[in-house]
Amino acid sequence: MIAVDVMSGERPPDVIIRGALKAAKELNVKVGLVGDEEFIKNCLKRFQFQYNNNVTVFHANEVIGMHEKPAIACKMKKDASIMVCTRLVQEGKAKGIFSPGNTGATLVAAFMNIKRIEGILRPTLASYIPTVKGKSLLIDAGANIDCTAEYMAQFAIMGEVFANKVQRKKNPSIGLLNIGQEKSKGDEITLKTYNILKDLDLNFVGNIEGYGISDGDVDVIVCDGFVGNIVLKVTERIFKLTFEFVGQEIENHLLQRIGYALIYPAVRNMRKKTDPSEYGGAYLLGLDASRVIGHGASDAITTYNGVRMVNIGVKNKLNKIIIERLEKFGLKR
Amino acid sequence: MIAVDVMSGERPPDVIIRGALKAAKELNVKVGLVGDEEFIKNCLKRFQFQYNNNVTVFHANEVIGMHEKPAIACKMKKDASIMVCTRLVQEGKAKGIFSPGNTGATLVAAFMNIKRIEGILRPTLASYIPTVKGKSLLIDAGANIDCTAEYMAQFAIMGEVFANKVQRKKNPSIGLLNIGQEKSKGDEITLKTYNILKDLDLNFVGNIEGYGISDGDVDVIVCDGFVGNIVLKVTERIFKLTFEFVGQEIENHLLQRIGYALIYPAVRNMRKKTDPSEYGGAYLLGLDASRVIGHGASDAITTYNGVRMVNIGVKNKLNKIIIERLEKFGLKR
Repeated sequence: MIAVDVMSGERPPDVIIRGALKAAKELNVKVGLVGDEEFIKNCLKRFQFQYNNNVTVFHANEVIGMHEKPAIACKMKKDASIMVCTRLVQEGKAKGIFSPGNTGATLVAAFMNIKRIEGILRPTLASYIPTVKGKSLLIDAGANIDCTAEYMAQFAIMGEVFANKVQRKKNPSIGLLNIGQEKSKGDEITLKTYNILKDLDLNFVGNIEGYGISDGDVDVIVCDGFVGNIVLKVTERIFKLTFEFVGQEIENHLLQRIGYALIYPAVRNMRKKTDPSEYGGAYLLGLDASRVIGHGASDAITTYNGVRMVNIGVKNKLNKIIIERLEKFGLKR
Repeated sequence: MIAVDVMSGERPPDVIIRGALKAAKELNVKVGLVGDEEFIKNCLKRFQFQYNNNVTVFHANEVIGMHEKPAIACKMKKDASIMVCTRLVQEGKAKGIFSPGNTGATLVAAFMNIKRIEGILRPTLASYIPTVKGKSLLIDAGANIDCTAEYMAQFAIMGEVFANKVQRKKNPSIGLLNIGQEKSKGDEITLKTYNILKDLDLNFVGNIEGYGISDGDVDVIVCDGFVGNIVLKVTERIFKLTFEFVGQEIENHLLQRIGYALIYPAVRNMRKKTDPSEYGGAYLLGLDASRVIGHGASDAITTYNGVRMVNIGVKNKLNKIIIERLEKFGLKR
């Protein structure tokens, strides 16, 4: 079963429920809808949903809001929907979680209730990032601020397994985010990470610069969560604003406005491809469960995609493969 | 006099010379053209340039290429154009430098031959970064990888003085680049920097996230050179690639291609506004000279703008004001 936190997003719970039901039906996956039981059951009634084995409702009488402080909120609201989701994993009832809510609270709840994979030093957040060639995986996207080279090397392994098993990329290429391509570049931790990765039997292509992310030079970009979080947010925002930039130039030129109207479908497609809410969210790796943290503005499609991604992780035994890889490379700690 | 390294860019020296002459004429500033004397004099002849007090030629018999290793190149090529430029400052003959060449080599040459401003811990590279509201100043843009909170606080002061004196912004706002807006966010160095800046009589608005850069939330963005370099490169690249992203969607739709042709002037303007070579380059602050490092692909206009920026720095006694501010805030070391 995959637990879906239906209450925590910015959108009404209805749309999250709709996405979860679509996943239950089309992917034949068991989902647990977690939130206010009465509300959820009323929704199901409204949707004229036929109960079946794939859908269960779990009551949670509280919600952690998008702007609450994660650590405090998780302590105070023991029965918040995200806390109930993580307990379902703890109790062995769920194998994965999808939550569209407060990223920090989701991380804290997960760290409180779900064990780390054996041998993993730090669980990590992996996120897609748009590139001119499609999308790459950025790891860590914000879970770990202060990293060691060993954490970063483990991120590389987890990212590689994810790209291979979930994205179905054969022998995914891995790059270390740095300020130059030469192996002598970077701070102490980056240099050490380079030296660990270069000796492993991985498709490690070395350092990549900021340019290389957007050029889509590698499948997996390894960095610490501080840089990763900032790079991801800058990238997302520029894509979102691009046409405001162009719009400022167009102003009142009639022909240019017509031109803009004509290319609008292409613009919309580009925006869609580069919009984080289309991806299904960020993936939390290294815990004893597959978990996706959806974007706050998740809609039904995002939820469907999120549940699908968690399900792929569960079905492909991502965690088992991660352990095997760590053992092979002598990086199990 | 401002020394212009005419040989080191990616473009032919002719265009750099042309830009420097334009600056000498229009801004009535003395320029020293540094490079192969015979070549430069032939250029001047071709341009039918009338010699005057504002233009002097200094011979340099070597050039450091864009892809040479900075530290080694500066050691081996003592008479490279950039080394001659920095010696002109050392000897008191020039007050500033413009170089379109290898950024690393320019930094190394400057650190070798030009003194730090008294009380400055680390010279820093400031660069414009495009935002939806125009452009902000990013400091440090790549000169300092391992920073302390005191370095970062000094960057904030230097950035503030630059924004005020060169960009003519009144009471420029300063933001600390971080992974969240709350003051409890970030790694140890960012937390410490926050605590220093919050107590100073500056327009410090607190932490800004990746989103806030592109939204143009602040005039001056303070960060370490590792994050700054990566963020700057990502930003530059996405703007450059944006229309490749849209182009991929347009493909063979005739109407969309017509639309693209119609808005092309607006696209060109946006690209121009967000193209780093339009800005005149990055500004090196904290040395006993005003210095601009042009983009490798600098043309005559970039050179003109670069010389203009250096000249503004010299005329406004940027360094004197920086020292005064550091003293006022008790940050002179």
